[in-house]
Amino acid sequence: MTEFETFMGSETEEPILPLPQLAEVKLQGMLDWLSTFGADAKGGVTRLLYDKAWCEAQHALAARMEQMGLLPEFDQSGNLYGTLRAADSAAGAEQLPIVTGSHIDSVVYGGRYDGAYGVVAGVLALEYLRRHFGTPKRTLQVVSLCEEEGSRFPFAYWGSRSITGITSLEDIRHLTDKDGIPFSQAIREAGFGSDSGYRPAAQKYGAFIELHIEQGQVLERLGHSIGIVSDIVGQKRLSISISGEANHAGTTPMSWRKDALAGAAEMITAVRTIAMAAGEPLVATVGRITAEPGLGNVVAAHAEFSLDIRHIRQESIDRCWHDMLQAFLEIASKLQLELNWEEHLSVAPIPMNEQITADLQNICKQEQLSYMHMPSGAGHDSQIFQPACPTAMIFVPSQGGISHSPLEFTAEEDLMRGFRVLVQLLYKYGYGS
Amino acid sequence: MTEFETFMGSETEEPILPLPQLAEVKLQGMLDWLSTFGADAKGGVTRLLYDKAWCEAQHALAARMEQMGLLPEFDQSGNLYGTLRAADSAAGAEQLPIVTGSHIDSVVYGGRYDGAYGVVAGVLALEYLRRHFGTPKRTLQVVSLCEEEGSRFPFAYWGSRSITGITSLEDIRHLTDKDGIPFSQAIREAGFGSDSGYRPAAQKYGAFIELHIEQGQVLERLGHSIGIVSDIVGQKRLSISISGEANHAGTTPMSWRKDALAGAAEMITAVRTIAMAAGEPLVATVGRITAEPGLGNVVAAHAEFSLDIRHIRQESIDRCWHDMLQAFLEIASKLQLELNWEEHLSVAPIPMNEQITADLQNICKQEQLSYMHMPSGAGHDSQIFQPACPTAMIFVPSQGGISHSPLEFTAEEDLMRGFRVLVQLLYKYGYGS
Repeated sequence: MTEFETFMGSETEEPILPLPQLAEVKLQGMLDWLSTFGADAKGGVTRLLYDKAWCEAQHALAARMEQMGLLPEFDQSGNLYGTLRAADSAAGAEQLPIVTGSHIDSVVYGGRYDGAYGVVAGVLALEYLRRHFGTPKRTLQVVSLCEEEGSRFPFAYWGSRSITGITSLEDIRHLTDKDGIPFSQAIREAGFGSDSGYRPAAQKYGAFIELHIEQGQVLERLGHSIGIVSDIVGQKRLSISISGEANHAGTTPMSWRKDALAGAAEMITAVRTIAMAAGEPLVATVGRITAEPGLGNVVAAHAEFSLDIRHIRQESIDRCWHDMLQAFLEIASKLQLELNWEEHLSVAPIPMNEQITADLQNICKQEQLSYMHMPSGAGHDSQIFQPACPTAMIFVPSQGGISHSPLEFTAEEDLMRGFRVLVQLLYKYGYGS
Repeated sequence: MTEFETFMGSETEEPILPLPQLAEVKLQGMLDWLSTFGADAKGGVTRLLYDKAWCEAQHALAARMEQMGLLPEFDQSGNLYGTLRAADSAAGAEQLPIVTGSHIDSVVYGGRYDGAYGVVAGVLALEYLRRHFGTPKRTLQVVSLCEEEGSRFPFAYWGSRSITGITSLEDIRHLTDKDGIPFSQAIREAGFGSDSGYRPAAQKYGAFIELHIEQGQVLERLGHSIGIVSDIVGQKRLSISISGEANHAGTTPMSWRKDALAGAAEMITAVRTIAMAAGEPLVATVGRITAEPGLGNVVAAHAEFSLDIRHIRQESIDRCWHDMLQAFLEIASKLQLELNWEEHLSVAPIPMNEQITADLQNICKQEQLSYMHMPSGAGHDSQIFQPACPTAMIFVPSQGGISHSPLEFTAEEDLMRGFRVLVQLLYKYGYGS
C-alpha cells in the first residue's frame, strides 16, 4: 500500500460526521462576492490570468483566508494556498497535505461557478472544519489555481502544470496574449515569477480533490445531486481538409464535379453515424466548418472542418478515429477529392483514484444523496494532478448544462450538497483515525 | 410569321458564304489590346462599370469602330453601338437592326474573354462584312453593353435592362458601390446619364445574337467547337438556416444533441442525391456554409448554407426544390432542429429563338464545324433580350471550364470558329436575299 492508501484506509464502516450548522455556510454569498472581481458587461465574469480583476480576486481571497483562520501563501505562479496545518504532534504532520480547490480564472464572458465554486467551497470547507473541529491530524489545504482555461494565453492548466512540474515558466515565457503582451511580462506585472520572492510553484500533494459544476446536463436530466467522476475523458482533436475543384455552379454537370463541400457533408454525417454506433460515453463533434471560395454560385474547391472525439478509453478513441478515417477515405475516393488531416491535440483519458472514489460513494450513501458515477467530458486540473497524486472530482448539476456563459447557474441547495460531500471527505482525511 | 421571320426566312438550301481571307482577322490581337484597359495585378482584367478602365476601354472601342468604318454612338447608359447602316434604298432599311455584341465590364480579377470576346468579334465581324461585301441590305449593329456582371453595384444586366426598358436610371440611382459612391454619381462622372446629351438607352432590336465563351467544360470534354445555346437556365437561389442548441462537445451525449451542423450536413448530402437523381441538365449547388458559434469544442447552435438550383424548365426547378424541402424537413424533424429558408432569386428559364438556332445549326453543318445544342448554365444579357426580340447565343470552348479568373482562356482557332459562325449568320441576315 502506498503512503496515501495507508493513511486514508477504507474504513467505510466508521460513522459519518454529524454536520453542525451547515446553514451558517454562505456559499452563494461568497460566490457572488468573488464574481464582482471581473464582473463584465454581459452580466458574467471575465477574469483572465494576471489581469487586474484576477489580481484583485486572488489578493482578496488571500485576505479572506486569513480572516477565516487559514494561512494564505502564494507561489511564484500566483497559485494561492490557504493552509490548515496539522498539529506538530499529529501522526499526519509529516505527511503531504490533502489539497482541495480549483481555478480562479474564467473564460471571456464566463460564469460565476466554473472553477470559482471549487475554490470558494474549499475555503469555506476548511474554515468550517477548523471552527467546528479545530486543528486537524493531517494538514489540509485549499488552492486557488492561477489558471486553467487557456483564455488569455494559448496555453491551459498553467496552475496545475507548474505545481506538478510538467511546465516551467521558461517553457512558456514567450507566449503572447491577443495584445502581444508576453507571458513573462504579464506574470511580472502581476507580482509573480521567479524574482517575486514567493516560493517555487512545484509542490507535492498527498491528494487532490476538486469540486466542480458538471458543465453538462447529465445530473439534471437524470435527477442526481452528485456526480462522482470515474474518469476524465481523453480527447483527440483534428482538422480535416478536403480539396476538390472550384467550378461554375451553372455550367458544370453534377457528375463532373469535385465538390469539396459535398464531400465534407458526407463525412460529417459519417462522424455522427459512427459516434452513435460506438455508443456512450463516446462523443464526436464537428463544430467548425469553412468552404472556399465560399460563394453560392461556385462549387467549393476546399472545405475544412474540426473533429473532436472523446472517450474514457484510449482504444475507443483510436478505434473510432480509425473507422471515421476509413469512411472519409471512401467518400473522398468516391467523389474524387483529396483528403488531408492534422491532429492538433491528443490527451489520454485519466481514471480518477479508486480509493477516493469509493470514499465519495460511501459518503453519498451515508448522507443519502442521490449520486452517480460519470465521466467528465470536459478537461480539468484534476487530469494534470492524477498522475502525480491520488485525485478525485465531485460534480454538482449545471442548470440546462450551460457553462462558459453568464447564464451558468447551479441552485444553492445543489451547491450545498456538493459542499457537504467535500466537508465529509476532508474530515475523513484530515481528522479521521 | 413575324416581321423577323419574314425577313430571315429559313432558306437553308442557299449556298453558304465563301469566307475570303479570314486569316487577316486579328481577333486575339484585339482581345489582347482590349485587356490592357483594366489590366490588374493578378494578370487578369478588372474593369468595373463607369470606372477609369471602363471609360478608357469604351472610348477606345468607339475610336476603333470609327476607324473600321462603323458609326460609333453611345446611349445614356454608356452602351456603345457601332452601326453598319443599310442602304437607304434597301428593303431592310426601315427594319429594326440586327444586333450582335456582349458586355464590356468584368468581374474583379476577371479574364480577357468573358463579354469582351462577343464585343470584339462583333466589331471585327461587321468590319469584315463591310470590307468584303459593302453596304448591307439590313442595318447591322454591334453593341458593347455597359454592364452585365453586377461587380460594382449590386445590380446586374444594367446594359440590357436599360435597352429593353425593364430598368430605368431612376430605379437604381441610389444604389452604392463598396466605397459608398451612388450609381447616379458614378454614371455622371463617367459622362453618361440623362443630362449627358446622348440619346436614351431604350431601343428596339430586330434580333440579338451573342457570341460568348462557354464558361464551362462541356464543349471541351465532348470535343465540340460550337455550342448552340438552346435555353438559358432558370435559377432559384435560397439561404437555408438551421437552428439547434449550442452544447459542450465533451459533456453532451450524442443522443441529446440538437446539432445544427449535423443537420446541415445531411441536408447538403440530400441536395446532391436529389440533383443527381433528377438528371441533367439539373444542377444544384451548396457553395457557402457557416456554423455558429463555429468552435471545435461546441456543438453548433446554428448553421446556414446557400442553395442554387438551375434547369431549363421551371417545373423541374420547382419539383427539385419541393423534393429537397421535404428532405430538409424530415432531417430537421429527426434531429430536433428548426428549419428556415429564404429565397433570394428566382429567374425563369429562357428558351432561345428557334429560327436563329436552326440557322446556326445549318451554318455549323455547312461549315463542317463540330457543334452541339446545349443550355447555358450561366446567366447572360441574351436572357434579358429574348423576351423583347428574337435572340440566340453561340458558345465556344473555355479551356478547363475556367472563367471569372485571369486563367480564363480560349485558343485562337476556337475563337475563330465562333467568329466564322457569327459572320455567316450576320451575312445571312444583313446581306441575304
